[in-house]
Amino acid sequence: METTPSAARRSDLATRVLAGDMRAAARAMRLVDDRSAGHLDLLKELYPHTGRAWIVGITGTPGAGKSTLTDRLVEHERARGRKVGVVAVDPTSPYTGGAILGDRIRMQRHFLDPNVFIRSLATRGHLGGLSRSAGDVIRVLDAYGCDTIFVETVGVGQDELEVTRLAQTTLVVMAPGMGDDIQAIKAGILEVADVFAVNKADREGADATVRDLEQMIALTRETAVAAASASSHSASHAHRVVREKRAEGGPWEPPVVKTIASRNENIGALVSACEAHRAHLDATDEGARKRVARAREELAVVFRDTLLGVAAQRVGAAQEAAVARLLAREADPYSVSEALVASLLAGGPS
Amino acid sequence: METTPSAARRSDLATRVLAGDMRAAARAMRLVDDRSAGHLDLLKELYPHTGRAWIVGITGTPGAGKSTLTDRLVEHERARGRKVGVVAVDPTSPYTGGAILGDRIRMQRHFLDPNVFIRSLATRGHLGGLSRSAGDVIRVLDAYGCDTIFVETVGVGQDELEVTRLAQTTLVVMAPGMGDDIQAIKAGILEVADVFAVNKADREGADATVRDLEQMIALTRETAVAAASASSHSASHAHRVVREKRAEGGPWEPPVVKTIASRNENIGALVSACEAHRAHLDATDEGARKRVARAREELAVVFRDTLLGVAAQRVGAAQEAAVARLLAREADPYSVSEALVASLLAGGPS
Repeated sequence: METTPSAARRSDLATRVLAGDMRAAARAMRLVDDRSAGHLDLLKELYPHTGRAWIVGITGTPGAGKSTLTDRLVEHERARGRKVGVVAVDPTSPYTGGAILGDRIRMQRHFLDPNVFIRSLATRGHLGGLSRSAGDVIRVLDAYGCDTIFVETVGVGQDELEVTRLAQTTLVVMAPGMGDDIQAIKAGILEVADVFAVNKADREGADATVRDLEQMIALTRETAVAAASASSHSASHAHRVVREKRAEGGPWEPPVVKTIASRNENIGALVSACEAHRAHLDATDEGARKRVARAREELAVVFRDTLLGVAAQRVGAAQEAAVARLLAREADPYSVSEALVASLLAGGPS
Repeated sequence: METTPSAARRSDLATRVLAGDMRAAARAMRLVDDRSAGHLDLLKELYPHTGRAWIVGITGTPGAGKSTLTDRLVEHERARGRKVGVVAVDPTSPYTGGAILGDRIRMQRHFLDPNVFIRSLATRGHLGGLSRSAGDVIRVLDAYGCDTIFVETVGVGQDELEVTRLAQTTLVVMAPGMGDDIQAIKAGILEVADVFAVNKADREGADATVRDLEQMIALTRETAVAAASASSHSASHAHRVVREKRAEGGPWEPPVVKTIASRNENIGALVSACEAHRAHLDATDEGARKRVARAREELAVVFRDTLLGVAAQRVGAAQEAAVARLLAREADPYSVSEALVASLLAGGPS
């Protein structure tokens, strides 16, 4: 809890953000980014006014041209008069703490557009801090009135997949010819992808990559059918259930769209595929399920971050003091952790 | 805390693991992997006997051929009579929970060798659970007497970088021609890399990738020198300090080694580069610094996992119950999290 000499001013800040005041939004963003005093009160004030933006996660393999593609998508949304937010998540710099210069340069031509708001985030503090920051910034952009918010992640690790769970629609960008252990990446990514873009589609191997992806999607569909059969006593019944599901809209199957972002080719088709997913969410109970999953994830991320923050304050010093004993093998990390958690839960050192 | 009807048996298990009994090691690994009752006692028993293995992290871009390279490194270590452990970390499957079949197949020819122990890990539960599992398995392999433990990660996200922090020597594997936003990846990876392998070096662009990496390494060195200068009143003094540091062994600069794992080419040179890093750690205070950093990381990972586990048990239901209120915008995740943490620290619902 924060006592606030400047509560009136902050409330004013929230009011101005909600009214779409760009300078206020910029100030709010800085406050949230730096986690300055009062940022929690602001976020609490803004939260009731969130949930309106369409949040599109953009992830995929390195070298696939995600930034250029994001840039094109921003352009496209702007051309339709939409207010756009971009959150560029950069988990590859947990050590430098810096944002990627390249992204900033590429996006620079949107800098003077008051209806495009771009934030780069670097990892902060402990693992998972990234998702917390991304979630906070998304909520400010949402409250500020952005119609579409793109959340672009670099890399395909667990933390990045977690960020995509904050999105309604996840676009996975691949490039042709990324070698064969790309299979491994695909396996993980297939389950988060709502739409695939095979970017740099003028390169050799683009059609093969599209075919690969479509095969994997078909395989997933068959596995789902088989699972449905297995869980039913009658295989024909299961097939009928699957057919019926399809008839009423059916499960979503990620379309694969070839693009060449550098030449602005096929961006419209990609946007249409994303819009189709959005419409699917609205038309089926998948949308409702996804809203529940997102709220659960939002809470999990903030809760974890809050808890680890308090833990660091209260037992961080004791934890650091135990390191020497571990090195001397006079203690083990399991016993030390149990003792630290017990002390924390007993309201220990603060 | 666990009360243990089978304490005697577990103690026997620890004894047999420490004596190098392979079947005992396999059982211990399963126990730890499944987090079955008694696994914590076992880990506590084994911990004092860890810290002897050389732990080599292997990470890098997807499609670089990490698995094949790891396989070659295992072969090489075995040829020198070393007992080898491999931990294959697969963070791209947080959803499937499955290990990558490909890796298993490629490594299969080592399956009958009692001196090669291979474990695939999939992400479990919450974010960071991966590092905990990897750490636990590394400690069992270490206690079992493995001389060298390779920890191979897929992907280059934050969680994977965290896993590499458990290693003494980190090998980063790249492949030629991975596109230009590979720069972003490099920026993050440069700070964890002790040795670079440019694998698939028979491909076009290998020399360019080597040059790129060497330029980035040189740039980092100059930045370090500049920082030293800036923090000193006399630039010439700073340069002298840097020169002196170099004379006494100096800071480590990651060598870049070209390899073709599929044809077993230049693996010896790569191993030599890794060994040189190991010797550098032994010869300088960097080794001691790294040991402290590793112990700190080990504890942080276990502590976080322990705390989040207890939190899930005690306030998980309350957390879930709050989701509907978030959806209705009757509550916000910040206030809910504060209340949950407060309740947890007050010894709330268990």
